[in-house]
Amino acid sequence: MPGSDRRTGDLLVVTATAVTPVAVQDPPLLNASGCHQPYQLRSIIEVHTAAGITGISEAYGDDATLALLAVGVAALPGLDVFDLHGLTSRVTEVLGNVVSSSFTELIGPASRDKTVAQVVGAFEVALLDIQGKALGRPVADLLGGAVRDTVDFSAYLFYKWAEHPAGSSSFAPDDWGTALDPDGIVAQARRMVDTYGFGSLKLKGGVFAPEEEIEAVKALRAAFPDHPVRLDPNANWTVQTSLRVAKELEGELEYLEDPTPGISGMAEVAARTSLPLATNMCVTAFADIPESVRLGAVQVILSDHHFWGGLHQSQRLAGICDTFGLGLSMHSNTHLGISLAAMTHLAAATPNLTYALDTHFPWKTEEVIQPGVLNFSGGALRVPTGPGLGVEIDRDALARLHEQYQRCGIHSRDDLAHMRLAQPHFTGRRPRF
Amino acid sequence: MPGSDRRTGDLLVVTATAVTPVAVQDPPLLNASGCHQPYQLRSIIEVHTAAGITGISEAYGDDATLALLAVGVAALPGLDVFDLHGLTSRVTEVLGNVVSSSFTELIGPASRDKTVAQVVGAFEVALLDIQGKALGRPVADLLGGAVRDTVDFSAYLFYKWAEHPAGSSSFAPDDWGTALDPDGIVAQARRMVDTYGFGSLKLKGGVFAPEEEIEAVKALRAAFPDHPVRLDPNANWTVQTSLRVAKELEGELEYLEDPTPGISGMAEVAARTSLPLATNMCVTAFADIPESVRLGAVQVILSDHHFWGGLHQSQRLAGICDTFGLGLSMHSNTHLGISLAAMTHLAAATPNLTYALDTHFPWKTEEVIQPGVLNFSGGALRVPTGPGLGVEIDRDALARLHEQYQRCGIHSRDDLAHMRLAQPHFTGRRPRF
Repeated sequence: MPGSDRRTGDLLVVTATAVTPVAVQDPPLLNASGCHQPYQLRSIIEVHTAAGITGISEAYGDDATLALLAVGVAALPGLDVFDLHGLTSRVTEVLGNVVSSSFTELIGPASRDKTVAQVVGAFEVALLDIQGKALGRPVADLLGGAVRDTVDFSAYLFYKWAEHPAGSSSFAPDDWGTALDPDGIVAQARRMVDTYGFGSLKLKGGVFAPEEEIEAVKALRAAFPDHPVRLDPNANWTVQTSLRVAKELEGELEYLEDPTPGISGMAEVAARTSLPLATNMCVTAFADIPESVRLGAVQVILSDHHFWGGLHQSQRLAGICDTFGLGLSMHSNTHLGISLAAMTHLAAATPNLTYALDTHFPWKTEEVIQPGVLNFSGGALRVPTGPGLGVEIDRDALARLHEQYQRCGIHSRDDLAHMRLAQPHFTGRRPRF
Repeated sequence: MPGSDRRTGDLLVVTATAVTPVAVQDPPLLNASGCHQPYQLRSIIEVHTAAGITGISEAYGDDATLALLAVGVAALPGLDVFDLHGLTSRVTEVLGNVVSSSFTELIGPASRDKTVAQVVGAFEVALLDIQGKALGRPVADLLGGAVRDTVDFSAYLFYKWAEHPAGSSSFAPDDWGTALDPDGIVAQARRMVDTYGFGSLKLKGGVFAPEEEIEAVKALRAAFPDHPVRLDPNANWTVQTSLRVAKELEGELEYLEDPTPGISGMAEVAARTSLPLATNMCVTAFADIPESVRLGAVQVILSDHHFWGGLHQSQRLAGICDTFGLGLSMHSNTHLGISLAAMTHLAAATPNLTYALDTHFPWKTEEVIQPGVLNFSGGALRVPTGPGLGVEIDRDALARLHEQYQRCGIHSRDDLAHMRLAQPHFTGRRPRF
């Protein structure tokens, strides 16, 4: 009852924070930058409070992010877990003029705001987890309530090799085999749809000549006529190439994601195609929005709480999309179950997030959370109903994956270097087509 | 502790809602529409839950609003108080195609969205009050935390008569006397600043010829050189008049509020003055924002949770203002203490709400809340620290003001009719200058 809540409330201040880097096995998935390395890095965040309640979160695990989080952790002691504005101001203060240039390949030029957003996003989820646990309510309730019980995800299809290049630290080949042509992509999609029930498909493109990827999309459309399909070449095409592909695929795609770099390039493409353009590369911070709106550069924004500054800021983005008639989808960044739970709560509590979400989930063979909560059915996840995020760390798994991190020798994501093990002359330059 | 919270949580569903109209005495304040009537109407909302916690809120009290609230009340039984999205969808459903045309004079053409927003805004505040009481935390904590301990307000200056026109239901003359010229306005400002400590001044204009109001502004600037001054003629000027006044007052005003009607008119003025233009008349719903941004029609938006759809939607508006480089201030609608508390929590938890807020507070001689919490000092209110809104209904006062409502004979605000008691040929037509 209120009285006892109040007493718990007084104790909801942060006492300590642990950041544990982990490495999880990852198949050789191809993209515009190169090839996924054998291990992807994440950091698992645990925020402890005087009340004895611990909140969890998840962020990138590369050296640059770990360094940022190490600085950011100093912002937390004594912070009330409801004081999310205080989190932002404290993080802003401790970061000072630090500007992280990690992920510029993904989210564009580095900025102080983007750096703050990354750190705030990492900790805010843990604070919301604590709030939810203290209240005995799911995080979705703290975001205005779930408008849906289940959240749809999309099958994330990749061109891939059967195994990692010789010379890389590696593990046994995954069981997905090769997918380097339309047949391989359709077979991959078939297995993914059969296993998880996904109702929409996303192909990571920008790997092969656009004509080959157009053929892959057409093959998917023929094999799955009722499945909306997206194509994401990660800004690896010129404006001219983008328009050529768009013309071929008009009416075939749910949306075309980041065909070409930059807001002005996207605006050029948007002006001359009826295909909706989506982005998680050229509009990645609030500062990007006014120009994008002015130029009509994109029709769909893929949110990502990891770089937009957390769940509340993602809802701010959602409100802007709703106001300006922009679609809203969600980007996936090779997450584990903690971020997947956060994405699911956020999507459930965002009325205008009606596109199926991206997820790398099917490519993961290792997990840091206890099983049982996040099970795909019909391509969707049930919104966890337990307190907070509704998922808990599997401590044995955390220890094992941390040990794997220490052993694997990878400290920053470098898809380019990994690709060069197989193709020494691969440049990674974009746009390449 | 969490366990007991959980049990309270399960009971946080709405069981019953009471809406009690009240009338409070109001002085003969002049504006573009006419003259304030002797009584202003508000409705006091009490939302009860199975947990025994009651939340309170406040809305307009005219017949049209009461009719809307009566329909909206049917949306509440069984609603979880954290399910704010559910509130919106339920209210949308029960309202059906109802479109309220009340306040079109203030907030522009009626729409379904505006109608829903009015009803949602009225109830959402009460649900947040319940959430806060259940958690033992102030509403500001539910909005991301207070970024300031005190919230600044502005002195709201009005041209006024000494007493209400003969022939109106009335009460003893107020003790503010007449203010019909620059000297009267300066004297009124002096008393208001001396009494409450306000650090900024707002003059309700649109009453007399613009030249007279320019003189009043200049007199205020001379008498209070350190006080920012705003002028609000309530869209009673043509574009040409607005530009003439703007030229006279450039450098003198903090902002010029709604000089002329409509987004396109405001854009015409904005294009030719360096004075920031503010509005609570032409951008009053999210649907108004894209055109306003495209045309650069306004530089400051005055939010008002009563017609923007509640505190969460007001935060959405704040996020949009921040993103698009717009200033954010707050409109006052002749509120009592419950809405004043809600405004204070919202402003405290809105980092970019840096302008002093409007308030009619000094003009009110009657109150519905228990005294002691909302006391002006240095022109500011301390953010209430008690659970929820931190204010409680004075039941004797509520009964008395409800009886006054039943007795006063006023059921809708009609400043025009009241003005005509004194000036039978007053048209109320705008723009009049």
